[in-house]
Amino acid sequence: MPRPWEVLANARVFDLAQPMSTGMPQSPNHPPFRMTLERRHGDLIREDGGSAANEVIITGGHVGTHVDALAHVSQDGLLHGGLASETVQGHRGFSALGIDAFAPYVGRAVLLDVAAAHGVPVLPAGYEVTPDDLDRAAAGVEIEPGQAILIGTGWSRHWPDPAVFTGQSGGAPGPGEAAARWLAERRPRLVGAETIAFERIAPGRGHAALPVHRVLLVEEGINIVETMRLHELLDAAAKEFLLVVNPLPIVGATGAPVRPLAVL
Amino acid sequence: MPRPWEVLANARVFDLAQPMSTGMPQSPNHPPFRMTLERRHGDLIREDGGSAANEVIITGGHVGTHVDALAHVSQDGLLHGGLASETVQGHRGFSALGIDAFAPYVGRAVLLDVAAAHGVPVLPAGYEVTPDDLDRAAAGVEIEPGQAILIGTGWSRHWPDPAVFTGQSGGAPGPGEAAARWLAERRPRLVGAETIAFERIAPGRGHAALPVHRVLLVEEGINIVETMRLHELLDAAAKEFLLVVNPLPIVGATGAPVRPLAVL
Amino acid sequence: MPRPWEVLANARVFDLAQPMSTGMPQSPNHPPFRMTLERRHGDLIREDGGSAANEVIITGGHVGTHVDALAHVSQDGLLHGGLASETVQGHRGFSALGIDAFAPYVGRAVLLDVAAAHGVPVLPAGYEVTPDDLDRAAAGVEIEPGQAILIGTGWSRHWPDPAVFTGQSGGAPGPGEAAARWLAERRPRLVGAETIAFERIAPGRGHAALPVHRVLLVEEGINIVETMRLHELLDAAAKEFLLVVNPLPIVGATGAPVRPLAVL
Amino acid sequence: MPRPWEVLANARVFDLAQPMSTGMPQSPNHPPFRMTLERRHGDLIREDGGSAANEVIITGGHVGTHVDALAHVSQDGLLHGGLASETVQGHRGFSALGIDAFAPYVGRAVLLDVAAAHGVPVLPAGYEVTPDDLDRAAAGVEIEPGQAILIGTGWSRHWPDPAVFTGQSGGAPGPGEAAARWLAERRPRLVGAETIAFERIAPGRGHAALPVHRVLLVEEGINIVETMRLHELLDAAAKEFLLVVNPLPIVGATGAPVRPLAVL
Repeated sequence: MPRPWEVLANARVFDLAQPMSTGMPQSPNHPPFRMTLERRHGDLIREDGGSAANEVIITGGHVGTHVDALAHVSQDGLLHGGLASETVQGHRGFSALGIDAFAPYVGRAVLLDVAAAHGVPVLPAGYEVTPDDLDRAAAGVEIEPGQAILIGTGWSRHWPDPAVFTGQSGGAPGPGEAAARWLAERRPRLVGAETIAFERIAPGRGHAALPVHRVLLVEEGINIVETMRLHELLDAAAKEFLLVVNPLPIVGATGAPVRPLAVL
Repeated sequence: MPRPWEVLANARVFDLAQPMSTGMPQSPNHPPFRMTLERRHGDLIREDGGSAANEVIITGGHVGTHVDALAHVSQDGLLHGGLASETVQGHRGFSALGIDAFAPYVGRAVLLDVAAAHGVPVLPAGYEVTPDDLDRAAAGVEIEPGQAILIGTGWSRHWPDPAVFTGQSGGAPGPGEAAARWLAERRPRLVGAETIAFERIAPGRGHAALPVHRVLLVEEGINIVETMRLHELLDAAAKEFLLVVNPLPIVGATGAPVRPLAVL
Repeated sequence: MPRPWEVLANARVFDLAQPMSTGMPQSPNHPPFRMTLERRHGDLIREDGGSAANEVIITGGHVGTHVDALAHVSQDGLLHGGLASETVQGHRGFSALGIDAFAPYVGRAVLLDVAAAHGVPVLPAGYEVTPDDLDRAAAGVEIEPGQAILIGTGWSRHWPDPAVFTGQSGGAPGPGEAAARWLAERRPRLVGAETIAFERIAPGRGHAALPVHRVLLVEEGINIVETMRLHELLDAAAKEFLLVVNPLPIVGATGAPVRPLAVL
Repeated sequence: MPRPWEVLANARVFDLAQPMSTGMPQSPNHPPFRMTLERRHGDLIREDGGSAANEVIITGGHVGTHVDALAHVSQDGLLHGGLASETVQGHRGFSALGIDAFAPYVGRAVLLDVAAAHGVPVLPAGYEVTPDDLDRAAAGVEIEPGQAILIGTGWSRHWPDPAVFTGQSGGAPGPGEAAARWLAERRPRLVGAETIAFERIAPGRGHAALPVHRVLLVEEGINIVETMRLHELLDAAAKEFLLVVNPLPIVGATGAPVRPLAVL
C-alpha cells in the first residue's frame, strides 16, 4: 500500500473557500467580516531594523465559507437529540454540540451537479432543488453512509456580485425540505453547497423559514457547509474526490469559518 | 493506483490546532481572541418554532494555531524579494505576500522530535534548538525540498497553563538563527512548531528580536506555522505523515488561523 | 453670582445624541456599530446569588453622533497647520490632532434653523445650504468667536428610516463650500449638524468629495459634530443655549462618539 | 437671572475621564479596549487630493470611565424593582434598565475626599471606606437627594501603573456595604469613584463578591460611575461643583463609557 503522500503526490488540490475581505457577500444576520491592519511595517522598528505587521479580525461564525455546528439551530427549544438549548448555552458558548464537537473530516465526497443536470451554468435564484434533481445528478455515483454530499448549483459564480450572491431581494437556489430528506436518508456525515444558506430562498423572503436546517441539524444531526466555492470543481466535472473540512476549533461556537479542500 | 480516499480509509487523523477560546494563551502583541454568543436560542423564534444562535468573533491573524504570511516581517523596510513594504500595505491589507498568497499545503511533513532526542517530554524554557539537535532528530528521515518540516519541543503540553505557555517571563524553547539556516538549506515549503513564536525566547526577553523570522520569512520566503498542537504526534512517535495546512483565506492579512491536520 | 448648579436647577436638558444600536444608520465607510451581550444574568452566579451582565461593543470613531478630530482629513498629504500626515499616524493612532487633542466644550451655541427659514420641517435631500441661508437663519442672533454654530436641516427626523437617513442613493442636505467659508469667518470653536457628513451630498454621489471637511478641518482647524439629534431643539425654536460636547477621550483616534447636551 | 453660558463663562472645566488607549488598565472580566486605525492618510486619495483616516474601536461597556446601568447586576435572578432578568435580556441587550434608561445628569455633585480625611494622597489598597469616613469627609457639605456623591480615594493617581491600578493581586480601596447604605440613605441620583469597581477589593480576592453593587444597583436603583479621574479635583480641594454625566446612549447595554465633566 503506498503512503498517503505518495498517492497524493500528483493530485490536484481545489480550494473550496471564498476569499475573505471587508465588504464580501454575507448574511446580514451575522457580524460583518472586517480585517484591518493594526501595525504596519515602519510603525515599530526593532533595534536590528526588523518590523512586524499584524491585524485585527472581526467576524461571525457563519461568515464566508463555514460549517454549521449542530448547536446552530433549535426547534421548539430543543437541539439535536432533544437537548434543551437553555441548558447548554452561556457566556462561553455551547457546552455541547458546538463546532468544537465536529471532528475534522478527511474522506470521500460526492458532488451532485444539479445545474449540469439542468444544462445551465447556474441555477436560477429561488429554484428549489428536488429529490428528482438529486436522483438525476447522482446517476452512476455511489453514495456511502458517513461520507460527504455536496450539491452544485453554480451559485459561487455570482460571488463577485454581492447583491446577487446574498439573494436578499432576489433569492437563491437550494434544496427544499424534500431534498433534505433525500439527503438524510443517505446518512452523510456532512452536506454542503455554494449559497449562504443551504436552503431554497424564495425571492423577497429572506431567511424567514429554514426547514432544511431543521431537518439536517436538529432532526438528523448532519452538519452543513455553506458558501462553498464549488464552481471550479463543477467546471472540472468532478464527481468524487477526497474532501477536507477542518473548521477553526472555536470552543462553544455555533459555526466556524473553514477552508475546505478537494483533492483529486 | 488506489484513489486517495481509499488509501486514507483507515488512516488516523491528528488535529494539530489548539482549541480557541476567550482567555487562551496568546501573544500580548496581538488582539486577544474573544468569542461571544450574540443570539441565543429563544431570543428570536420564528413562527414555526425554529431559532438560530450565532456569535461574534474577534481575533488577530497570529492568534491560536496560525500561519505567518511572508508579509508579516520586514527587514530595513523590505519584505521578501526586496519588495518595499510601503508599496504594498494599506487599508485593504497587503496587496502582495499576504496570507492569501499562500497556496494550501497538502503533502508530506517530517517531524523532528528534539525533545525526544534529549530524552525529555518538554524542552526547557529558553532552550535554543541547534543544528546539531536537528541533525540528531532527523537521523534516518529523508527530507525533500518543497515539503514541511516540523520541530517537536513538547511545548504544546503546557497549553493548559497560559502563564507558562506564553513564556512572557520564563521564555520558550525554539530554533536559533543557526537552526533557521539549517532548515532553509533543506528548502522546505513551510516549517512549524508548538510555541507562539518560532524562535528561541530567552527568559525575560519577550519578542525583542526575532532572527528566525527574518531568515525564514524575509530572506528565504518560507512560511511558518506557530502554536501547533504536536504532542499527540510526539507521543505516537510519528516521523512522517501527510500534512494539511489550509489557513483562512483572509485577503491581505499577515497571517491567519488554521486547523492543520496530520494523516498517518 | 449664583453657582452653576443653581442657575441650571430649572434648566431643560436636551439630549442631542442619536441612540446607538446594531443596524442603526451610519456611513458604509466606517466599521458598523454592534453591541452584543456577553454574559447574561444566570450565566455565572456568585456564591451569594449575585450575577453581572456585560457586553462587547464594536464601532468606528465616526459612527452615531460623533466629533471629527482635525486628524480625520488631509489635503495633499497635509493635516491642519501643514503637518505631514505620515509623521503622526501609526499603530497607536495619531500622535497629534487626534480626538484627545479636543478639549471638552462647555459653552454657548447658536442654532441656525435653515429648514425653518425655508418654511419646511426637513430640507430636501441634496439641498445645498448657502451663505444666504445662513444669513437669514442667523438674523437677530449674535455669533461670537470661539463658540459653537449648529445648522438645523431637520434631517434627524429621518433617523428611523436608515435608507433615507444615510442618503446613500438619495443624498442629504448640508453646507456647500461657500457656507463653510461663511462659518469659518465667524471663527467658531466647532460646528455641527444632523447628517452623517457635514456636507451637501448630491443624490447618487456618496462621499466622492468633501470640500467642507477640507475647509473646516484642514484649512481652518474647526472641529465638526455629525449625526446630531437636533429636531427637538428645532421644535422648541431654540436659538441659543449652553452646549456640552465631550467626546470619548480615545487617544489618537480621528473621531469619537459623543452624547452632546443642550441646556436651556 | 443670568443665562447658563454667562454663568459658566469663566468657569473651570475638569475632565473626569481617563484617556482610552490599547493596553490601559481595565477589568479582565470585560472585553479589552482596542483602537486601531483602519484607513490612514494616503491609503485612498480622492481625485482632489483629499484623504480621510478612520479607525476600528473594540471595547466593553465597563471599560475606561463608565456608568453602570441598573441592568448590570442582579440578585437571585432579579434586577432592580424585582424585575426578572430573563424577561428583559436578549440579543438586542436589555429592554429595560439598560444604560439608555439613564437620563443624562447635569447637576450638583459633592466630592467626599476620604483620602484627605486620612491625611494621605491615596488610600491604601484594600482599604474599606466606612460610614465614619464619609461622615468626616462630608463635614460642612450639604447633600441633597437626587444629586451626585463622589468619593475621593486618590486611586486615579495610580492610572499610569496598570498592575497597581487594576488591583488584581493587590486589591483596591472602596466603600464596604455599610458605606453603601450610608450613601443610599441620602438618596443620590448617582455615585462615583476612581477605582474600576465601586467596592472595597481585598488583596487577592478580585471581584468575588460585590455587595455595594447589589445594594446600589439592585436594591436602591442608584447608578454608579467607575474609573473616574478625580485627582485633579482632589488637588483643587473641590467639594461641590456642577457635574455632567452623559454616557453613550447604547441601547440595551449594561453600561457605557462616559466623559464626565466637573464645572467649578
